[in-house]
Amino acid sequence: MKNIRFVTLLCLLFATPAFTATSAETSIKAVLTAQVDAWNKGDLSTFVTSYAEDCLFVGKQVVRGRSAVLARYQKSYSSAAAMGKLEFADLEVHEVDPQVALVIGHFHLTRTPEGGGDAQGVFSLVFHRIGGKWQIVLDHTS
Amino acid sequence: MKNIRFVTLLCLLFATPAFTATSAETSIKAVLTAQVDAWNKGDLSTFVTSYAEDCLFVGKQVVRGRSAVLARYQKSYSSAAAMGKLEFADLEVHEVDPQVALVIGHFHLTRTPEGGGDAQGVFSLVFHRIGGKWQIVLDHTS
Repeated sequence: MKNIRFVTLLCLLFATPAFTATSAETSIKAVLTAQVDAWNKGDLSTFVTSYAEDCLFVGKQVVRGRSAVLARYQKSYSSAAAMGKLEFADLEVHEVDPQVALVIGHFHLTRTPEGGGDAQGVFSLVFHRIGGKWQIVLDHTS
Repeated sequence: MKNIRFVTLLCLLFATPAFTATSAETSIKAVLTAQVDAWNKGDLSTFVTSYAEDCLFVGKQVVRGRSAVLARYQKSYSSAAAMGKLEFADLEVHEVDPQVALVIGHFHLTRTPEGGGDAQGVFSLVFHRIGGKWQIVLDHTS
Protein backbone atom coordinates (compact mmCIF):
# COMPACT_ATOMS: atom_id res chain seq x y z
CA MET A 1 0.00 0.00 0.00
CA LYS A 2 2.78 2.36 0.98
CA ASN A 3 4.57 1.55 -2.27
CA ILE A 4 1.48 2.29 -4.35
CA ARG A 5 1.10 5.66 -2.65
CA PHE A 6 4.74 6.44 -3.31
CA VAL A 7 4.46 5.48 -6.98
CA THR A 8 1.26 7.57 -7.32
CA LEU A 9 3.03 10.53 -5.74
CA LEU A 10 5.99 10.10 -8.08
CA CYS A 11 3.69 9.93 -11.13
CA LEU A 12 1.87 13.10 -10.05
CA LEU A 13 5.17 14.85 -9.45
CA PHE A 14 6.52 13.98 -12.89
CA ALA A 15 3.23 14.85 -14.62
CA THR A 16 2.83 18.38 -13.23
CA PRO A 17 3.80 21.39 -15.36
CA ALA A 18 5.69 22.73 -12.35
CA PHE A 19 8.11 19.82 -12.52
CA THR A 20 8.61 20.31 -16.26
CA ALA A 21 9.26 24.02 -15.70
CA THR A 22 11.83 23.35 -13.04
CA SER A 23 13.48 20.70 -15.19
CA ALA A 24 13.72 23.07 -18.19
CA GLU A 25 15.03 25.89 -16.02
CA THR A 26 17.62 23.64 -14.41
CA SER A 27 18.79 22.30 -17.80
CA ILE A 28 18.97 25.76 -19.36
CA LYS A 29 20.84 27.24 -16.42
CA ALA A 30 23.32 24.35 -16.70
CA VAL A 31 23.90 25.29 -20.37
CA LEU A 32 24.56 28.91 -19.35
CA THR A 33 26.93 27.85 -16.57
CA ALA A 34 28.82 25.69 -19.07
CA GLN A 35 29.03 28.72 -21.39
CA VAL A 36 30.54 30.88 -18.65
CA ASP A 37 33.03 28.13 -17.76
CA ALA A 38 34.08 27.74 -21.41
CA TRP A 39 34.45 31.52 -21.86
CA ASN A 40 36.57 31.84 -18.73
CA LYS A 41 38.86 29.08 -20.06
CA GLY A 42 39.21 31.02 -23.32
CA ASP A 43 37.45 28.18 -25.15
CA LEU A 44 35.18 29.85 -27.69
CA SER A 45 34.66 26.64 -29.68
CA THR A 46 33.02 25.02 -26.66
CA PHE A 47 31.21 28.28 -25.79
CA VAL A 48 29.34 28.26 -29.12
CA THR A 49 28.20 24.63 -28.86
CA SER A 50 25.22 26.05 -26.92
CA TYR A 51 24.02 27.67 -30.15
CA ALA A 52 21.88 25.80 -32.69
CA GLU A 53 23.50 25.25 -36.10
CA ASP A 54 21.03 27.68 -37.70
CA CYS A 55 20.94 30.23 -34.86
CA LEU A 56 20.52 33.97 -35.23
CA PHE A 57 22.65 36.46 -33.31
CA VAL A 58 21.44 40.05 -33.16
CA GLY A 59 24.06 42.53 -32.01
CA LYS A 60 25.07 45.58 -33.99
CA GLN A 61 24.69 43.32 -37.02
CA VAL A 62 22.64 40.18 -37.59
CA VAL A 63 24.86 37.08 -37.69
CA ARG A 64 23.51 33.79 -39.03
CA GLY A 65 24.57 30.30 -38.02
CA ARG A 66 26.88 28.88 -35.36
CA SER A 67 30.04 29.08 -37.51
CA ALA A 68 29.49 32.78 -38.23
CA VAL A 69 28.72 33.42 -34.54
CA LEU A 70 32.01 31.71 -33.62
CA ALA A 71 33.88 33.82 -36.19
CA ARG A 72 32.31 36.99 -34.76
CA TYR A 73 33.36 36.06 -31.21
CA GLN A 74 36.88 35.16 -32.40
CA LYS A 75 37.17 38.54 -34.13
CA SER A 76 35.71 40.63 -31.27
CA TYR A 77 37.52 38.73 -28.50
CA SER A 78 40.85 37.83 -30.04
CA SER A 79 42.88 37.48 -26.83
CA ALA A 80 42.49 36.29 -23.23
CA ALA A 81 42.69 39.95 -22.15
CA ALA A 82 39.85 40.94 -24.53
CA MET A 83 37.74 38.01 -23.27
CA GLY A 84 38.31 38.86 -19.61
CA LYS A 85 36.18 37.20 -16.95
CA LEU A 86 32.51 36.64 -17.85
CA GLU A 87 29.64 36.65 -15.38
CA PHE A 88 25.88 36.44 -15.95
CA ALA A 89 23.44 38.13 -13.54
CA ASP A 90 19.67 38.56 -13.07
CA LEU A 91 18.97 35.39 -15.06
CA GLU A 92 15.30 34.64 -15.67
CA VAL A 93 13.98 31.60 -17.53
CA HIS A 94 10.44 31.85 -18.91
CA GLU A 95 8.97 28.74 -20.52
CA VAL A 96 6.82 29.50 -23.56
CA ASP A 97 5.91 25.87 -24.24
CA PRO A 98 7.58 22.54 -23.40
CA GLN A 99 10.07 22.97 -26.26
CA VAL A 100 10.74 26.71 -26.14
CA ALA A 101 11.99 28.98 -23.36
CA LEU A 102 13.13 32.60 -23.11
CA VAL A 103 16.02 33.76 -20.99
CA ILE A 104 16.82 37.34 -20.12
CA GLY A 105 19.85 38.46 -18.15
CA HIS A 106 22.81 40.78 -17.90
CA PHE A 107 26.44 40.01 -18.69
CA HIS A 108 29.52 41.60 -17.21
CA LEU A 109 33.07 41.29 -18.48
CA THR A 110 35.81 42.14 -16.01
CA ARG A 111 38.80 43.24 -18.10
CA THR A 112 42.10 45.03 -17.74
CA PRO A 113 42.48 48.41 -19.47
CA GLU A 114 44.61 46.55 -22.07
CA GLY A 115 41.72 44.14 -22.63
CA GLY A 116 39.37 47.05 -23.33
CA GLY A 117 38.15 47.67 -19.79
CA ASP A 118 34.98 46.30 -18.22
CA ALA A 119 31.96 45.81 -20.44
CA GLN A 120 28.33 44.96 -19.70
CA GLY A 121 24.97 44.66 -21.34
CA VAL A 122 21.63 42.93 -21.48
CA PHE A 123 20.71 39.85 -23.47
CA SER A 124 17.64 37.87 -24.39
CA LEU A 125 17.92 34.29 -25.58
CA VAL A 126 15.44 31.91 -27.12
CA PHE A 127 16.15 28.29 -26.31
CA HIS A 128 14.66 25.44 -28.34
CA ARG A 129 14.79 21.83 -27.16
CA ILE A 130 16.10 19.96 -30.20
CA GLY A 131 16.58 16.19 -29.80
CA GLY A 132 16.28 16.53 -26.03
CA LYS A 133 19.00 19.22 -25.92
CA TRP A 134 18.32 22.90 -25.15
CA GLN A 135 20.00 25.09 -27.76
CA ILE A 136 20.05 28.85 -28.40
CA VAL A 137 18.18 29.70 -31.59
CA LEU A 138 18.23 33.47 -31.01
CA ASP A 139 20.64 35.66 -29.05
CA HIS A 140 19.99 39.40 -28.93
CA THR A 141 22.69 41.21 -26.99
CA SER A 142 22.81 44.97 -26.47
CA MET B 1 -12.09 11.12 -59.99
CA LYS B 2 -11.16 14.72 -60.63
CA ASN B 3 -12.83 15.71 -57.35
CA ILE B 4 -10.89 13.07 -55.39
CA ARG B 5 -7.62 14.31 -56.85
CA PHE B 6 -8.56 17.89 -55.94
CA VAL B 7 -9.47 16.89 -52.36
CA THR B 8 -6.23 14.89 -52.04
CA LEU B 9 -4.26 17.87 -53.29
CA LEU B 10 -6.02 20.15 -50.81
CA CYS B 11 -5.32 17.74 -47.93
CA LEU B 12 -1.65 17.55 -48.87
CA LEU B 13 -1.47 21.32 -49.12
CA PHE B 14 -2.98 21.85 -45.66
CA ALA B 15 -0.85 19.13 -44.09
CA THR B 16 2.54 20.40 -45.24
CA PRO B 17 4.73 22.39 -42.84
CA ALA B 18 5.27 24.88 -45.68
CA PHE B 19 1.59 25.81 -45.59
CA THR B 20 1.67 26.21 -41.80
CA ALA B 21 4.78 28.39 -42.08
CA THR B 22 3.20 30.64 -44.67
CA SER B 23 0.04 30.91 -42.60
CA ALA B 24 1.98 31.84 -39.44
CA GLU B 25 4.17 34.28 -41.36
CA THR B 26 1.14 35.91 -42.99
CA SER B 27 -0.68 36.25 -39.67
CA ILE B 28 2.37 37.66 -37.88
CA LYS B 29 3.14 40.13 -40.65
CA ALA B 30 -0.50 41.29 -40.44
CA VAL B 31 -0.01 41.94 -36.69
CA LEU B 32 3.11 44.01 -37.47
CA THR B 33 1.32 45.96 -40.21
CA ALA B 34 -1.51 46.72 -37.76
CA GLN B 35 1.12 47.93 -35.26
CA VAL B 36 2.64 50.32 -37.80
CA ASP B 37 -0.82 51.61 -38.75
CA ALA B 38 -1.73 52.20 -35.08
CA TRP B 39 1.59 53.98 -34.40
CA ASN B 40 1.19 56.23 -37.41
CA LYS B 41 -2.29 57.21 -36.18
CA GLY B 42 -0.78 58.08 -32.79
CA ASP B 43 -2.79 55.25 -31.22
CA LEU B 44 -0.46 53.64 -28.66
CA SER B 45 -3.32 51.82 -26.89
CA THR B 46 -4.05 49.86 -30.09
CA PHE B 47 -0.31 49.50 -30.82
CA VAL B 48 0.26 47.56 -27.58
CA THR B 49 -2.63 45.14 -28.10
CA SER B 50 -0.09 43.05 -30.07
CA TYR B 51 1.73 42.37 -26.80
CA ALA B 52 0.72 39.52 -24.47
CA GLU B 53 -0.57 40.61 -21.03
CA ASP B 54 2.55 39.16 -19.38
CA CYS B 55 5.07 40.23 -22.06
CA LEU B 56 8.67 41.25 -21.48
CA PHE B 57 10.23 44.29 -23.14
CA VAL B 58 14.01 44.55 -23.14
CA GLY B 59 15.33 48.00 -24.01
CA LYS B 60 17.66 49.98 -21.81
CA GLN B 61 15.60 48.57 -18.94
CA VAL B 62 13.48 45.43 -18.65
CA VAL B 63 9.77 46.30 -18.66
CA ARG B 64 7.19 43.71 -17.58
CA GLY B 65 3.61 43.42 -18.76
CA ARG B 66 1.52 45.15 -21.41
CA SER B 67 0.40 48.01 -19.13
CA ALA B 68 3.97 48.88 -18.19
CA VAL B 69 5.01 48.64 -21.87
CA LEU B 70 2.22 51.08 -22.77
CA ALA B 71 3.32 53.46 -19.98
CA ARG B 72 6.91 53.30 -21.28
CA TYR B 73 5.81 54.15 -24.85
CA GLN B 74 3.56 56.97 -23.57
CA LYS B 75 6.49 58.43 -21.61
CA SER B 76 9.10 58.05 -24.40
CA TYR B 77 6.77 59.15 -27.21
CA SER B 78 4.59 61.80 -25.58
CA SER B 79 3.62 63.73 -28.73
CA ALA B 80 2.82 63.15 -32.41
CA ALA B 81 6.17 64.78 -33.25
CA ALA B 82 8.07 62.39 -30.93
CA MET B 83 6.25 59.40 -32.46
CA GLY B 84 6.96 60.48 -36.02
CA LYS B 85 6.35 58.04 -38.87
CA LEU B 86 7.21 54.39 -38.16
CA GLU B 87 8.44 51.91 -40.74
CA PHE B 88 9.66 48.33 -40.35
CA ALA B 89 12.27 46.87 -42.74
CA ASP B 90 14.14 43.59 -43.33
CA LEU B 91 11.42 41.60 -41.57
CA GLU B 92 12.12 37.90 -41.16
CA VAL B 93 9.76 35.41 -39.56
CA HIS B 94 11.29 32.16 -38.30
CA GLU B 95 8.93 29.51 -36.95
CA VAL B 96 10.32 27.62 -33.96
CA ASP B 97 7.30 25.35 -33.53
CA PRO B 98 3.62 25.67 -34.51
CA GLN B 99 2.93 27.97 -31.51
CA VAL B 100 6.13 30.02 -31.40
CA ALA B 101 7.86 32.20 -33.98
CA LEU B 102 10.77 34.66 -33.95
CA VAL B 103 10.80 37.90 -35.87
CA ILE B 104 13.82 40.07 -36.49
CA GLY B 105 13.78 43.41 -38.25
CA HIS B 106 14.78 47.04 -38.25
CA PHE B 107 12.64 50.04 -37.35
CA HIS B 108 12.97 53.58 -38.60
CA LEU B 109 11.26 56.66 -37.23
CA THR B 110 11.09 59.67 -39.52
CA ARG B 111 10.86 62.71 -37.24
CA THR B 112 11.27 66.46 -37.36
CA PRO B 113 14.16 67.99 -35.40
CA GLU B 114 11.52 69.08 -32.82
CA GLY B 115 10.39 65.45 -32.53
CA GLY B 116 13.95 64.37 -31.76
CA GLY B 117 15.13 63.71 -35.32
CA ASP B 118 15.15 60.35 -37.10
CA ALA B 119 15.78 57.23 -35.03
CA GLN B 120 16.42 53.62 -35.97
CA GLY B 121 17.38 50.30 -34.49
CA VAL B 122 17.07 46.55 -34.61
CA PHE B 123 14.51 44.39 -32.84
CA SER B 124 13.83 40.76 -32.16
CA LEU B 125 10.36 39.58 -31.19
CA VAL B 126 9.08 36.28 -29.90
CA PHE B 127 5.50 35.60 -30.91
CA HIS B 128 3.36 33.00 -29.12
CA ARG B 129 0.03 31.82 -30.51
CA ILE B 130 -2.33 32.12 -27.54
CA GLY B 131 -5.96 31.14 -28.14
CA GLY B 132 -5.38 31.21 -31.90
CA LYS B 133 -3.95 34.76 -31.74
CA TRP B 134 -0.26 35.59 -32.30
CA GLN B 135 1.00 37.83 -29.49
CA ILE B 136 4.41 39.28 -28.63
CA VAL B 137 5.79 37.68 -25.46
CA LEU B 138 9.28 39.21 -25.81
CA ASP B 139 10.44 42.39 -27.53
CA HIS B 140 14.14 43.24 -27.44
CA THR B 141 14.85 46.54 -29.17
CA SER B 142 18.30 48.10 -29.46
